Amino acid sequence: MSVGIVKEQTVTFDQGIKLDSGRILAPITLAYETYGTLNPAASNAILVGHAWTGSAHLAGKLNAEDSKPGWWDAIVGPGRLLDTDKYFIICSNVIGSCFGSTGPASINPKTGKRYNLSFPVITARDMVRAQKMLVETLGIDRLLCVMGGSMGGMQALEWATQYPDAIGSAIILASTPQPSPQAIALNAVARWAIFNDPTWRKGEYKHNPKDGLALARGIGHITFLSDESMNAKFGRRFSARDGQFDFFGQFEIERYLNYNGYNFVDRFDANSFLYLAKALDLYDVTWGYESMADAFSQVKAPLQFFAFTSDWLYPPYQTEQMVTCLEELGKPVEYHLITSAYGHDAFLLEHETFAPMVRAFLAGVADKEGN
Amino acid sequence: MSVGIVKEQTVTFDQGIKLDSGRILAPITLAYETYGTLNPAASNAILVGHAWTGSAHLAGKLNAEDSKPGWWDAIVGPGRLLDTDKYFIICSNVIGSCFGSTGPASINPKTGKRYNLSFPVITARDMVRAQKMLVETLGIDRLLCVMGGSMGGMQALEWATQYPDAIGSAIILASTPQPSPQAIALNAVARWAIFNDPTWRKGEYKHNPKDGLALARGIGHITFLSDESMNAKFGRRFSARDGQFDFFGQFEIERYLNYNGYNFVDRFDANSFLYLAKALDLYDVTWGYESMADAFSQVKAPLQFFAFTSDWLYPPYQTEQMVTCLEELGKPVEYHLITSAYGHDAFLLEHETFAPMVRAFLAGVADKEGN
Repeated sequence: MSVGIVKEQTVTFDQGIKLDSGRILAPITLAYETYGTLNPAASNAILVGHAWTGSAHLAGKLNAEDSKPGWWDAIVGPGRLLDTDKYFIICSNVIGSCFGSTGPASINPKTGKRYNLSFPVITARDMVRAQKMLVETLGIDRLLCVMGGSMGGMQALEWATQYPDAIGSAIILASTPQPSPQAIALNAVARWAIFNDPTWRKGEYKHNPKDGLALARGIGHITFLSDESMNAKFGRRFSARDGQFDFFGQFEIERYLNYNGYNFVDRFDANSFLYLAKALDLYDVTWGYESMADAFSQVKAPLQFFAFTSDWLYPPYQTEQMVTCLEELGKPVEYHLITSAYGHDAFLLEHETFAPMVRAFLAGVADKEGN
Repeated sequence: MSVGIVKEQTVTFDQGIKLDSGRILAPITLAYETYGTLNPAASNAILVGHAWTGSAHLAGKLNAEDSKPGWWDAIVGPGRLLDTDKYFIICSNVIGSCFGSTGPASINPKTGKRYNLSFPVITARDMVRAQKMLVETLGIDRLLCVMGGSMGGMQALEWATQYPDAIGSAIILASTPQPSPQAIALNAVARWAIFNDPTWRKGEYKHNPKDGLALARGIGHITFLSDESMNAKFGRRFSARDGQFDFFGQFEIERYLNYNGYNFVDRFDANSFLYLAKALDLYDVTWGYESMADAFSQVKAPLQFFAFTSDWLYPPYQTEQMVTCLEELGKPVEYHLITSAYGHDAFLLEHETFAPMVRAFLAGVADKEGN
C-alpha cells in the first residue's frame, strides 16, 4: 500500500559542518521526508540514501494531483519491503543537491547570492556528516539500517565505516568502494559537455545551460543502461520519423537520450549535477585509511550487498572486492549477485527480485536489535 | 624494415558513384598509397582499410623530417607481416574522410563551395564501391586479401559480400556485422557534442568547432580503451597539478581525454567526423538481405576474424555471430579470440600476438591463389 500524501520537511544547522576538504559549510539546510512512526525506543528507523539526481521524496505523493509518486515508492509503505507499519523511514536530500538541501544553487548568506562555483567540493562522507546531524535531531542514536543504491550505497558504506556504532546494519546496492577510471571518464565527458555550453558561464547562469546539461544527462543515461537493455528496448531501430539517410536522422536510442536529456533540464540544476558528479568520482571508502582492510576494520554492523550482472558502471567485481575484504576480516557480510539485463538502473527496477533477501536480512537485524 | 619514404597519390573518377542512399556523388577523388611491387600477374595485392579517423598513410614517412610513420607502420615493410618483398600493399582514404579523398570538406564543383552538410550520407558499402574503382584502375581484378580493423573490418566484410570474386581472402579485426545500440549511443553523444558547439554552425564553420570536436573525440577515446587498460594506465590518480578539492581539478584519465581531444582538433574535420560516425552506426552487413545468412551466402573467399576480449565497443560476441553463421553455411572461416586489456584499440596494438596467425593465413591464401 502507498504511504499516501506526504510532506517534505526541512531542518537547518547554523553551525554547519566541516568538510573533507577542510572548508566549513554553514549554515546547512537538509530537506527530508519520513514515513511511518518512530517507536518509543527510537530503534526502528531506516535511512535511505538517494542516488545522483534523487531527492528526499522517496515515497508517496506530495498532493492528490501529483502525477508520480516518490522515486522508490514501490518498496515503501504499509506491507511493502520497507514496511511503514514496522519501520520509521527517513530520506534526506544530500548536501550539494538542488531539492531543498544546501547546494550550489542555494543563497550564500554571506553574499546574498547563489554559491555557484564558490560552493565547496563535497564528498559522500560530507553528505553523511549532515545526515548524522539530521538523525540525531530526530532523536535517533542508532539506525536500524541504512540502505541505498549507487551514490546511496556510498552513503551506506560511509555510515558503516564512519559511524559504526550508530547503525544496526547496512544494505548496499549497485555501489562501489571507488569508481573505476572508466566510470570517472564517463562522468568527465558529462562535465565537459556542461563546461562547453557558453550559457553555463562558469556556473553564473540565469537559466540552466540546457544543451550542455541535456547532453551530460544523455551520457549519464548510457551508463545507467546496458548493451542488453538497449538491445531489448531499442535494438538498431531507426526513428520512424526520420530517413536513414537524413544527416540529422536518429536511431531510436539516440532520440531516447535526446528526449530524456532535455527533459532533465527542467528539473535539475547544472551546478548541482557537476558537484555531485565530482563527489561520485572522488568517492573512495579507503579515504584517510591505509587500505580497504583498514577502512573496513571499523565496521561493526552486518552488511548486505547486491550487485547486478549487467551493471558496467559499478560492475559486480567492485562489490566483490568489498565482500572478500570484509569476509577476510571476519565481518558479518552477505552478498547477492542478481542476474539482470537492466544495467546500473537494475537496483531501482529489480526490487521484486531482491525483496525477499532484504526482508529476511532486516528481520534478522530487527530481532538482534530487539525490535 | 620500414618502407622508407612514401608518396601519396590521388585518382579522380569523374563519373563518381551511386550511393546506397540513391544519391550520386561525382566526381570522386581518392587519396591512396602503395608499397611494394605489383607482380606481372597482378595477383599479390593486399588492400588495407582504415578505421574512423585513419588515412591512406598506412606506412613509412612522407619525408625525412616526418616525426611519425603511418598509422600501422609496424606491420608493413620488407620482412614485416605485410611483407612488401612479397605483396603489393594498397591503402586508400575512404570517401567522407578529410585526408585527400572526397568528403564534406571538399569543394562541390557545382557550387564552388565546400559540401559541408550538403554532402550525402555515405555507408561502408559506398566506401568500398570507390575502392573497387581504385583497385581496377591499378590493373587488379582480384585482390589477394582485404584486411582491416574496426571500420576497416566493415570494408573487408563488404568486399567479401559485394565483390566475392574480386578477393582471395579477407582479414577482419575488432569489427561487427552491425554496431549495437550501446555503440550507437556513444557515437550519438559524440555527434551531439559537435551539434552543441555554436561555432559548428550546422557545418558552415570557418574553423573546426574545437570544444565540441574535442569532447566528441574524448568520448570516442573512452570507447577505444577499456576498464582494464584505463586502470593500468591511469588508475584513479589525480593530476599532480590539481588539488583534489579544486572544482576544476582533474583525474589523470580526465586530463588524458582532454589533451587528446584538443590535439585532434588540428587534424580532423568535424563534418567528416560526423559523416563517418554515421557510417559506422548505419553499418549493417545484412543491408539489402533477408538475414545474415543471406548476406554471407555471397561469400566465396576464406575469412579470418580476430576479436579482442576487452573490446566493449564491438565485443567478441558480435564477431562470433558472424563466425557461427559462416560456419553454418559451410564457408571457410577462421576465428581467433585474443586476450588483451587494450579494448577496441587492441587491433592496432596486439599485432605481435596476431601476426603468426595472419602470416600463416596469408601464406595459405597465396599458395591457393598461385603466388
